[in-house]
Amino acid sequence: MTQTYALDQETAAKLARLAQQLRVDSVRSSSAAGSGHPTSSLSAADLMAVLLARYLRYDFAHPDAPGNDHLIFSKGHASPLLYAMFKAAGAITDDELLTFRRLGSRLEGHPTPRLPWVDVATGSLGQGLPIGVGLALTGKQLDRLPYHVWVLCGDSEMAEGSMWEAIEQAGFSGLDNLTAIIDVNRLGQRGPTRHGWDTSAYAQRLAAFGWNAIEIDGHDIAAIDRAYAQARVTLRQPTAIVARTRKGRGVSAVEDAEGWHGKPVPDAKEAIRELGGLRDERVQVRHPEPGLRPHVFPSGELRLPEYQPGDKVATRTAFGHALAAVGTARSKVVVLDGEVADSTRTEFFAHAHPDRFFEFYIAEQQMVAAAVGMQVRGWAPFATTFAAFMSRAFDFIRMAAISRATIRLAGSHAGVSIGQDGPSQMGLEDMAALRTIYGSTVLYPCDANQTAALTATMADLTGISYLRTTRADMPVIYRPGEEFPVGGSRVLRSSENDQVTIVAAGITVHEALAATDRLAGDGIAARVIDAYSVKPIDTAAIRQAAADTGHVLTVEDHWPQGGLGDAVLETLAVPSGPLPVVVKLAVRDMPASATPAEQLDAAGIDAAAIVAQVAELAGR
Amino acid sequence: MTQTYALDQETAAKLARLAQQLRVDSVRSSSAAGSGHPTSSLSAADLMAVLLARYLRYDFAHPDAPGNDHLIFSKGHASPLLYAMFKAAGAITDDELLTFRRLGSRLEGHPTPRLPWVDVATGSLGQGLPIGVGLALTGKQLDRLPYHVWVLCGDSEMAEGSMWEAIEQAGFSGLDNLTAIIDVNRLGQRGPTRHGWDTSAYAQRLAAFGWNAIEIDGHDIAAIDRAYAQARVTLRQPTAIVARTRKGRGVSAVEDAEGWHGKPVPDAKEAIRELGGLRDERVQVRHPEPGLRPHVFPSGELRLPEYQPGDKVATRTAFGHALAAVGTARSKVVVLDGEVADSTRTEFFAHAHPDRFFEFYIAEQQMVAAAVGMQVRGWAPFATTFAAFMSRAFDFIRMAAISRATIRLAGSHAGVSIGQDGPSQMGLEDMAALRTIYGSTVLYPCDANQTAALTATMADLTGISYLRTTRADMPVIYRPGEEFPVGGSRVLRSSENDQVTIVAAGITVHEALAATDRLAGDGIAARVIDAYSVKPIDTAAIRQAAADTGHVLTVEDHWPQGGLGDAVLETLAVPSGPLPVVVKLAVRDMPASATPAEQLDAAGIDAAAIVAQVAELAGR
Repeated sequence: MTQTYALDQETAAKLARLAQQLRVDSVRSSSAAGSGHPTSSLSAADLMAVLLARYLRYDFAHPDAPGNDHLIFSKGHASPLLYAMFKAAGAITDDELLTFRRLGSRLEGHPTPRLPWVDVATGSLGQGLPIGVGLALTGKQLDRLPYHVWVLCGDSEMAEGSMWEAIEQAGFSGLDNLTAIIDVNRLGQRGPTRHGWDTSAYAQRLAAFGWNAIEIDGHDIAAIDRAYAQARVTLRQPTAIVARTRKGRGVSAVEDAEGWHGKPVPDAKEAIRELGGLRDERVQVRHPEPGLRPHVFPSGELRLPEYQPGDKVATRTAFGHALAAVGTARSKVVVLDGEVADSTRTEFFAHAHPDRFFEFYIAEQQMVAAAVGMQVRGWAPFATTFAAFMSRAFDFIRMAAISRATIRLAGSHAGVSIGQDGPSQMGLEDMAALRTIYGSTVLYPCDANQTAALTATMADLTGISYLRTTRADMPVIYRPGEEFPVGGSRVLRSSENDQVTIVAAGITVHEALAATDRLAGDGIAARVIDAYSVKPIDTAAIRQAAADTGHVLTVEDHWPQGGLGDAVLETLAVPSGPLPVVVKLAVRDMPASATPAEQLDAAGIDAAAIVAQVAELAGR
Repeated sequence: MTQTYALDQETAAKLARLAQQLRVDSVRSSSAAGSGHPTSSLSAADLMAVLLARYLRYDFAHPDAPGNDHLIFSKGHASPLLYAMFKAAGAITDDELLTFRRLGSRLEGHPTPRLPWVDVATGSLGQGLPIGVGLALTGKQLDRLPYHVWVLCGDSEMAEGSMWEAIEQAGFSGLDNLTAIIDVNRLGQRGPTRHGWDTSAYAQRLAAFGWNAIEIDGHDIAAIDRAYAQARVTLRQPTAIVARTRKGRGVSAVEDAEGWHGKPVPDAKEAIRELGGLRDERVQVRHPEPGLRPHVFPSGELRLPEYQPGDKVATRTAFGHALAAVGTARSKVVVLDGEVADSTRTEFFAHAHPDRFFEFYIAEQQMVAAAVGMQVRGWAPFATTFAAFMSRAFDFIRMAAISRATIRLAGSHAGVSIGQDGPSQMGLEDMAALRTIYGSTVLYPCDANQTAALTATMADLTGISYLRTTRADMPVIYRPGEEFPVGGSRVLRSSENDQVTIVAAGITVHEALAATDRLAGDGIAARVIDAYSVKPIDTAAIRQAAADTGHVLTVEDHWPQGGLGDAVLETLAVPSGPLPVVVKLAVRDMPASATPAEQLDAAGIDAAAIVAQVAELAGR
C-alpha cells in the first residue's frame, strides 16, 4: 500500500480490517485496565488506520529522525487507539499493550513522551493543535524539512479558545504542512457537544480562518483517503478534515450512546467478536525520505552585554540585549513573543535574528504551546510576555512539565514597581505559579549584569525555567562577567555582628541595600542576601545566615503566598532543629495606580519598611 | 438627541463635537498623568460619542439600577476615553478627571470597579467580551431584563482565544442583547496587528460564528449611528460593529503612527488646539425604562444532604448534592460548568434547577468570565471543572480579584488520588494558584458532611472562594449538621503525650488517621488536625499544637510549593519566637498511571509514609 496508487477495493478492505484491529486492541487494553476511553478511540479508528498505513511517514526505529512526520493526539484520552497504532506498527508488543494504565507502564492513561514516539503530553484538551502549530512552524521556518504534522482533535475541544488561537495562527501562516483531523463523534464527556454532527458548523468557521476544510464521513475509508491525499497536496493552507463519526463505532452496546465516555465496554468478549475478532496485522509504515537534515543557522561567539556598576538599567532591557547575544552564539535559540516585544525587549533579538523570532500576537496559550512544539525538534525556545500574562498560559506550562519539555519563559513588568498601569499589568502571582511547576527553575535578577549572565545560563537549563524581569531602571551592582550559578545566591552585606538576615531578590535587593545603609547609621548590622535563584534556592547560604543572625526577613514584590518568602521558609524547615524567627514582607493589599516609589511604599516593601522591621527584630 | 429621530446634519455635527471633547479630555488626563493610552482612546472616540449620546441607557446616579445597560471596555487601556465619557455624562468632575493614575485616585490606569459605573476590571486583554457574554446571558436567562451589553474591543485582543470562546458562546446563544464594538485601529502595542485594516477578516470570522457583523468607517458618525441602530433591532444574533479607525485620530503628531502606544501625545497644548480646543458639553444619557425589576426565582428551605459516619462517599458527590440543596434554598445561586458536570457532580444541580445551570462546554476561560459577569448583577455563581483545568482560567481568576468579584470555584479530581488517568488530569497546583489570589478563601474538605456544610458556607462568602474536591470515595467521619467555620480546623486525635502534630486536609486526613492508629500501637502519640480551611488557616490551633508537640508534619496531595505545607509554615513563622520543626510530605515526583492507593504510596503521602516520618520525628 502506498499513496501513489488510488484506493482499490482490496486496499480499502484491508484498511477496514486494520481499523477493526485498532478497535479490538482499544477494547482489549482498556478492558484489561478496567478504565480508559475505548469509545473515543473507536470513533477515530478508521481515520487513524488510513493515516498509519498510507500517509504517515515515520521511522518507528528512529523516533528522532529529522524527517519523521509528527502525530499528536490532541484528544489524548483516545490513548488506547494510539497505543493500538503503535502495536500495529510493531513499536510495542501485545504484552506491553495490555499494561495500559498500570503502575510502571509507559502506556499512561493519557500519552506522555515516556514513549519515544510521543512528542508531547496531552490530556488537557485544546493543547495538541497549538503544539502542532508550533511543530509546523518549526518545519517551515526552522528545520525547513518536509515533514507533516497530523493532529487528531476531538469535537468537544473545539470549544477551547486555544484551538482558535492555533487555527488563526496556522491559517495566517499558511501552514500546508499541518492537518487537523477532527473526530466529530457528537458526544462529549457529559453528553452531546454544542454542534453535534453539524460538521458544517466547524467547516465554515475553519474556512473563515483560511483553512482548507473538508467534510467527510469518518467511517468511509475511500473518503478518508481522498481527504488525506488532498491535505498532502494543498498548498499555502492548512487542512482540516472534519469527520462525522460515531462514538463507540462497531460495538453496538455503546455505539452513539450517552453514558459511555471514559469507561470500558460492558462486555469485551462480545465486543471483540462483534468487531471481527482478534487480529495481528502489522503495518509497514512508510519512512521519511532518507538523508533529510534540518537547517542549521550560523552561530558565533557569545558576547554578553556589559554594564558598568552605578549605571541604571532595567533588567528587562539587559535581558533583551543578552538574549540577542545568546542568539548569536547559539543558533538553536528561538524567541517567541506575544505582541509586547517592545516591552519585554525581545525586539533586540527580533532585529538581530529575524528568522528565529516568532510573533504570536496576543495569544499567550499559542505562544507557550509553540515553544513546546519547537523544543520537540531540539530548538531552544524563550517565550516572553508580561509576567502577569504568563498566567494566561498556566495550564500550558503545567502540561509542558508533563511533556518533559525544555522551555524558557521570561516575564517582564513583574511586581507593583511597574507603577501607574495598575494591578492588571502587575505580575504578583508569577513566582507562586512558576515555583509550583514540576522541575521548574525560577530566577529573579536584580541588576543588568546578573540578568545577562542568567539569560545565558537559561539556554543550558533543562525543564521549565522562568526569568522574572523588572520594568524600572535599577542600579548596576555587579561587575560584568561575574558568575551566578543556578541554586546560588550572593551575600551583599555581611559582618560578624549581623542581627538580622534580609533575603531579597530583584528590585527589593536595592531596597534592602538602602535599608542596611540606613540601619548601619543606627548601629544595627544586617546581612543582605540576593536570592536571585528563587528555585532552587540557596539552602546552605540561607541556613547559615539564619543560624548566624537568628532572624530572617524576606522582602518580595509579590503576593505573600508561594514566592520568595515561602521558598525561604521551606528551606529553613528542616527536621534537624527549630527554625529561626522569619518575617515576610510582601504585597498584601490590592494596589492601584501610583508611581513606582509610591507603590513600594504602599506595599510596605521599600527601604523604610525594611528599616522598621529589622529594627523591631533587632529589638530596637 | 434621541434614537427615535434619524441622524440629521446638526445632530451629526453635535456628536462630532462631543467626540472631539472626549479626545481632548483623553489627551488632557494622560498628559497630566505623564502616562496612559491617549492614542488608543482617540481611535474610538467617535464610536463612544454616538453610543453615549444616543444608544446607551444608563442612570449614572443609580449605577445599580437593574435596567441599566452595561458598558465594558475590553480594551481597558483606553481608560482615558472611558473617564472622558464619565465626565461628559456628569458622573465625575473635570478636577477628578485630572487625577488620572495618581496615588489614591479612583481613575486607575485600567478601569476597576472602584468607580461605581465600572462593572469589572479590565486591562488583561481578551476578558471584557467573555465577561460581557456572561452579563448578556444574565439579562436573557436570569434577570430577564431588556438591558443591552456594549463591549468596546481592541483589534489586537482578537488574537486571544478567550475572545473566540465568547464569540462562539454568544453566537450559539443568540445573544441579541450584546454588541461588540471592535476598534480596528490597525496598530497594537508593538506595531501592526495581524490583520491590519482588513475589517473583512474579522467580519467573515464573526459571521461564521453566527454573528451579525457590520463593517464601518469608525470615524463616520452617520455610519456609526446606523450600525448601533441595527444592533438594537437585530434579533437572535449578537452584533459586531467592526470599525476601521485610525489610532491617535485627530492629533497629527501621532495619528496612525507607530511608537505611540501607551504614551502621552508629545505636545498636549498643540493637540488640544488641533482637536478644536477645550469643550465642556454635557450629555443627558438616556435612562432605562423605569420600574424594571429583575426576575426572581422561587426559593425554599435549606436541606443539606446528610451522610452517616462510616459510609463511603466522594466529596465531589457530596458537593453536587449540597449544591442542588443550596440552589433550592437560595434562588440567586447559579452554576456554571465546563462540560464535566457528570464528574464535578453539578449535574445534580442541573437537574434540580435547569434554568440556573449554564453549560459552557470545554471553555474554562469563558466559564469563569461568565461567573464574573453574573455576579455583577448580584447572582451567586459557582463555576466548576476539574481542579487541573482551573489552571486554564488562572488569568481570569487573577483579574476577578481586581474586579472585587464574588465568585465560587470548585475543582474536582484533585491530587494524585484520581489514579489511572494520570498527571494531566490531576490538580496538583490548584492550591498554590488559588492561595495566591488576592483575598481568596481555599477550602478542602475530607468527608461528605463537611463538604455539604462548606458548600453552604461558600454561598455567603465574599471574594473568590475555592473548594477542592476528591474523586475517590472516602469514609464519612463527621456527623450531619456539624459546623465548619472558615478559618477553623478540627482536632481529630489528641492526647497529652502527643509528640508530633500531623496537619492534613482532604484525602490525607484519612491517611493521617490510619497512621495515628498504627503509631498508637507502637506507643507513639500523634495529634491530627484536619485543616479543611487552607486559607485562611487556623493559626491559633496550629500554633498551639506546634507548641504542645514540638514537631509538625504536613501531608498534602499537591506539589510541595504553595499548598497546605506552606500555609502551615507561614502561620508558624511569627516574630515572637522560633519555629518548631516542620516537615512537609507532598507530591515530589511526576506521577504516572496507577491505582489511587498506589499513587498515594508512590507520592509518599499515605499512612505508611506518615508512620515512618512521625516515628523519625518522635526519635524512634
